[in-house]
Amino acid sequence: MARFRFAASAALVALSFHASQAMADEGMWTFDAFPTARMQQDHGWAPDARWLGRVQAAAVRLTGGCSASFVSPEGLILTNHHCIVECAQDNSTDQRDLLKDGFVPARREEELKCPGQQAEVVTAISDVTTRVKAAIGTSMGEALVKARDAEVARIEKEGCRNASIKRCEVVTLFGGGQYKLYTYRKYSDVRLAWAPQFQAAFFGGDPDNFNYPRYALDAAFLRAYENGRPVRTPAHLAWSSRGPKVGEATFVVGNPGSTQRLFTSDQIAFQREVGLPLTTTILSELRGRMISAMDKSPQQKREGADELFGIENSLKVYIGRQRALNDPVFLKMLSDAEADLKAKAMGKPGIGDPWADTAKAVQAYRDIYVPWRFIVPRSALMEQAMTLVQGAAEREKPNADRLPEFRDSNLELTTKTLLDEAPVYPWMEQLELEWSLSKAREYLGADDPDTRLLLGKDSPEALAERLVGGTSLADAAARKALWEGGSAVIAASTDPMIVYARRIEARERELKKLVDERYAGPLAQAGARLADARFMAYGNSVYPDATFTLRISYGKVQGWKERGQDVSPVTTIGGAFDRATGAEPFNLASGFAQSEAKIDKTLPFDFVTTNDIIGGNSGSPVIDREGSVIGAAFDGNVHSIGGNYGYQGDVNRTVVVSTAAITHALAVIYPAPALLKELGVQ
Amino acid sequence: MARFRFAASAALVALSFHASQAMADEGMWTFDAFPTARMQQDHGWAPDARWLGRVQAAAVRLTGGCSASFVSPEGLILTNHHCIVECAQDNSTDQRDLLKDGFVPARREEELKCPGQQAEVVTAISDVTTRVKAAIGTSMGEALVKARDAEVARIEKEGCRNASIKRCEVVTLFGGGQYKLYTYRKYSDVRLAWAPQFQAAFFGGDPDNFNYPRYALDAAFLRAYENGRPVRTPAHLAWSSRGPKVGEATFVVGNPGSTQRLFTSDQIAFQREVGLPLTTTILSELRGRMISAMDKSPQQKREGADELFGIENSLKVYIGRQRALNDPVFLKMLSDAEADLKAKAMGKPGIGDPWADTAKAVQAYRDIYVPWRFIVPRSALMEQAMTLVQGAAEREKPNADRLPEFRDSNLELTTKTLLDEAPVYPWMEQLELEWSLSKAREYLGADDPDTRLLLGKDSPEALAERLVGGTSLADAAARKALWEGGSAVIAASTDPMIVYARRIEARERELKKLVDERYAGPLAQAGARLADARFMAYGNSVYPDATFTLRISYGKVQGWKERGQDVSPVTTIGGAFDRATGAEPFNLASGFAQSEAKIDKTLPFDFVTTNDIIGGNSGSPVIDREGSVIGAAFDGNVHSIGGNYGYQGDVNRTVVVSTAAITHALAVIYPAPALLKELGVQ
Repeated sequence: MARFRFAASAALVALSFHASQAMADEGMWTFDAFPTARMQQDHGWAPDARWLGRVQAAAVRLTGGCSASFVSPEGLILTNHHCIVECAQDNSTDQRDLLKDGFVPARREEELKCPGQQAEVVTAISDVTTRVKAAIGTSMGEALVKARDAEVARIEKEGCRNASIKRCEVVTLFGGGQYKLYTYRKYSDVRLAWAPQFQAAFFGGDPDNFNYPRYALDAAFLRAYENGRPVRTPAHLAWSSRGPKVGEATFVVGNPGSTQRLFTSDQIAFQREVGLPLTTTILSELRGRMISAMDKSPQQKREGADELFGIENSLKVYIGRQRALNDPVFLKMLSDAEADLKAKAMGKPGIGDPWADTAKAVQAYRDIYVPWRFIVPRSALMEQAMTLVQGAAEREKPNADRLPEFRDSNLELTTKTLLDEAPVYPWMEQLELEWSLSKAREYLGADDPDTRLLLGKDSPEALAERLVGGTSLADAAARKALWEGGSAVIAASTDPMIVYARRIEARERELKKLVDERYAGPLAQAGARLADARFMAYGNSVYPDATFTLRISYGKVQGWKERGQDVSPVTTIGGAFDRATGAEPFNLASGFAQSEAKIDKTLPFDFVTTNDIIGGNSGSPVIDREGSVIGAAFDGNVHSIGGNYGYQGDVNRTVVVSTAAITHALAVIYPAPALLKELGVQ
Repeated sequence: MARFRFAASAALVALSFHASQAMADEGMWTFDAFPTARMQQDHGWAPDARWLGRVQAAAVRLTGGCSASFVSPEGLILTNHHCIVECAQDNSTDQRDLLKDGFVPARREEELKCPGQQAEVVTAISDVTTRVKAAIGTSMGEALVKARDAEVARIEKEGCRNASIKRCEVVTLFGGGQYKLYTYRKYSDVRLAWAPQFQAAFFGGDPDNFNYPRYALDAAFLRAYENGRPVRTPAHLAWSSRGPKVGEATFVVGNPGSTQRLFTSDQIAFQREVGLPLTTTILSELRGRMISAMDKSPQQKREGADELFGIENSLKVYIGRQRALNDPVFLKMLSDAEADLKAKAMGKPGIGDPWADTAKAVQAYRDIYVPWRFIVPRSALMEQAMTLVQGAAEREKPNADRLPEFRDSNLELTTKTLLDEAPVYPWMEQLELEWSLSKAREYLGADDPDTRLLLGKDSPEALAERLVGGTSLADAAARKALWEGGSAVIAASTDPMIVYARRIEARERELKKLVDERYAGPLAQAGARLADARFMAYGNSVYPDATFTLRISYGKVQGWKERGQDVSPVTTIGGAFDRATGAEPFNLASGFAQSEAKIDKTLPFDFVTTNDIIGGNSGSPVIDREGSVIGAAFDGNVHSIGGNYGYQGDVNRTVVVSTAAITHALAVIYPAPALLKELGVQ
């Protein structure tokens, strides 16, 4: 499969700029700036506004960090299996393991609610650049961040009067060059409608992640509900069960999470020299701790699976980025692009030297990075404790002054995420706390004031045990009481996790203030000028960096050359049987083995396209010229990882599970005749 | 403490060149080229030949990767506690934990044998450069390596007729600029004579490793035996129990393991771009796997302790190196030195352009590095199996054609290491095999031929379980039978670990051949010319890179400035009481706590000097102007890690446990009156 979804919390640096002039098939375009002429030129055809409008209306964003699409009039949603693993796990018991066995409900009434999941569809996009820039005015540093965030809060609140079904989000594009208000229709009751066995979806496991050829049925169906009934979705994509044709045009519509394609050379250097070495090192240790801990019992193995896959997926991304930034050829491509832009725009009126300002901000960030990174130890319960403690204080402030997650526009989702029932695994909480506390001490030093604040006289092990053993936050009712109780109840709480969150909160705020003042503020200021520089140099031929908002990419079904060898673009279902060794993770799912006689091994399984995507695009529909869905994107090849910094059209590939394979699975492997009918097959 | 000993197996790249002109106090000098004039100039005094000879005769090398010294006429050896941890662990039982409780024998008869340990004293050094260079002649690539190694084998064999008490080793200095024959008197019965509690030696644990101020009693005594009786050692250092004086001259005499101070920029780039990112990442995962696995039971915690400390110590070194090589200022210091040397010597007769040749060799190595690194999975049993399988074939060859470890000059030690009784922990064997097999697959790719060779159709977990569960190599008698049986017995063995070693052996040899042909051979050739370039440019003011052979460094007792703050050079025993938190690893050893009333807290504990040392120097005597020992070096500060590539005299410091503290411990904390008497202390 490959966790090609977007994990915002794991992002190294979320601030981002946009790419220079795009190459063929490069680009994660906004719907309002689709490069029709360019595609027309490259592919001899391009979609019109009506086509784009139809497709946009069927595109779904999942709050878990994935993309998806409506594929029936009754709220049926196609996405990746790896986007529903957490849901399947949350609904599993000792008696019924939905990951091991898959999930094929006999009737709709058996579809299972996914805790914390929400589906969102864009209904309007409007440009609010003038308003936000006016509010920023000439302010700098932390004041800039505050002025911007306050105006954003106001715009979002005005835009969404009915917060129970709408969500408003102001998105920063081009690193501050544009601000747009996205309005979403949201569905907060999302249920699992069909899932193959985990082993069918994840055949090849972590070793195959970001690799190709692949044989993974990384697909699943969800359904949006409202008032206990399936949502009506007349705007949906037609289902095509034909296989992909080599060379045909393909569109990927979804929410790429984050790219850093026009980081200045100083931002790149920070990642190469500081961010990535630290991240790959400490995350590898966490991976190792998880692997051995999961070895203790089948139960821990099951409970830890999703977390481990998330860690391994992130790690592969960071290792791949580190490799890209340690490749002198790749680095030169980036610095050549920067040199071209500088030559065209530096020193021009209104531009000045934003590169120097960025360099200064990055230099300042180097001093704050380590404490900022470690000040809140990692654990699900700790995150909830911080939400409770900060939320109590924030909700007493006027909307415009609050931290973004507590603004009226986000409060409902924050509340839902906090209060939804979801299992907590104390051993894993403790493991992650021990890990992050010991890493904090390692990188800050044993005698550092922040280490003393985090540990006091405790060891990481003793502290983690005390916090996890003593807290009642695992109980949703306890969280609800603290959330609704507000400041007084939080201040009076003796829950050790709350007491601890209170202990670190002030320092966390102080560090955030420093980051805003010296880094985020100056970068936003420089970013707007870098954006202007790019518009000046390249006009409209540019697209913004990814921001986990709706984009469209065009490309085609095409293989590539790997070390001189042609990689064929389409695999067959039979290939999975050939490749299976019997040993994890290359063991065939039992459903495949048992249905072998009925399976048509010549059918297409997975395929690759030249579409330009990135984490967050997981589950995105892959659409043909007719506007029908022919697959679900679930990964990129190994060359797609460097795509964070730049697109290499000759080798960067999107990996897709074909609707042909999904249809065949619905027919003979994990039979769901009602779904086939709903999809209009037969 | 800090594992400041030398782990050859963990060295990234062992080939090494020598430093350019040395700065004040810089240098790991050979005894035959001590820079008397320079020290005279810097310190107003320098030792004469007699002083140097006396000190050299008392210096001991431990085959475990440490340094040491004789400190009594009856074979008593001072070294670090962290150099005897393995011995203490091997001698511990469920009933008697020598790490937890320390070890203070009531009589000499109770001193405990250390499996696998051997003590060696240099008795002669002779220059064999002409002979080796003549044998190499004009050969290149693999042929050069073979010709050189064959001549080395001949020289070593001729030099040591009595292999049971002598050992001969030809050492490559200046990357091939010089070859010297070192002759050692060896003692293969080494026993533990005194050790404090582990917690006293390792106070501050991994967090304090490579840090200062420190409060660690990282000292222990061994004793050399022969024919069941203590060895007579008239050549030994006088014991001084006075504390260090700030500013006084200090000498460190020991065996620095490996430095890479004049790597060319291409060799540095390889480490920064490829070697270090890979190493820090995978070793961190192993660390994490060990931490969680040791959490399973107190027994595993005890059994895994030494291995984990070794891993964490290596990791800190590699992370520190990576940080140094990602520091633009440090990099510039290195490239300036290279530019200076090039300007003085490049293109001169006999020199040519060895930098270009090195670049080509490094480029070739980039393609072989990953398979070469992963072809032999990590585990103690696997290493024994490889020794058995390769040894059977090698011992049938003429001495000069054998791999170095099977030459007559090394065969005795190889045999001893293989056959000595030492406990094996199956869980740890399995853990390390699983780890290294899964990392091989990750970095080679699931479909790579080497991955297929390593795994077949197995998973790493199943294969590791089968190998460790089925082998009888943990039994020393079984190893003896296989070793003595030779080729026929090895070929007929059905022991799964032997079967596996047979399976990978040919590919390992093939890769070694490639490495020799494309990398090691060309580097040896270029290295000799780079050495000549340096002699041409800087004359005798240069010292060779470290090679785990005897060196002497001069310096003085001195603190440094850390972020503007003065770090005081000497700590007191009382400081340990102030710093103790009660929580691991900052809990006071029970011996300290119980003896508090008797302890003189004003006595010096640890101190720092400007001596230039590196891993392998662990246990080295720190000697004053009189030739008396005033401490045992056990670590460097954090700035010493970059010392692998270059010495920074303003901040690079050696960390030492004072004889004052050791004497006090012998008197009142872990009382050993007989030892005090033997040391000449009242």
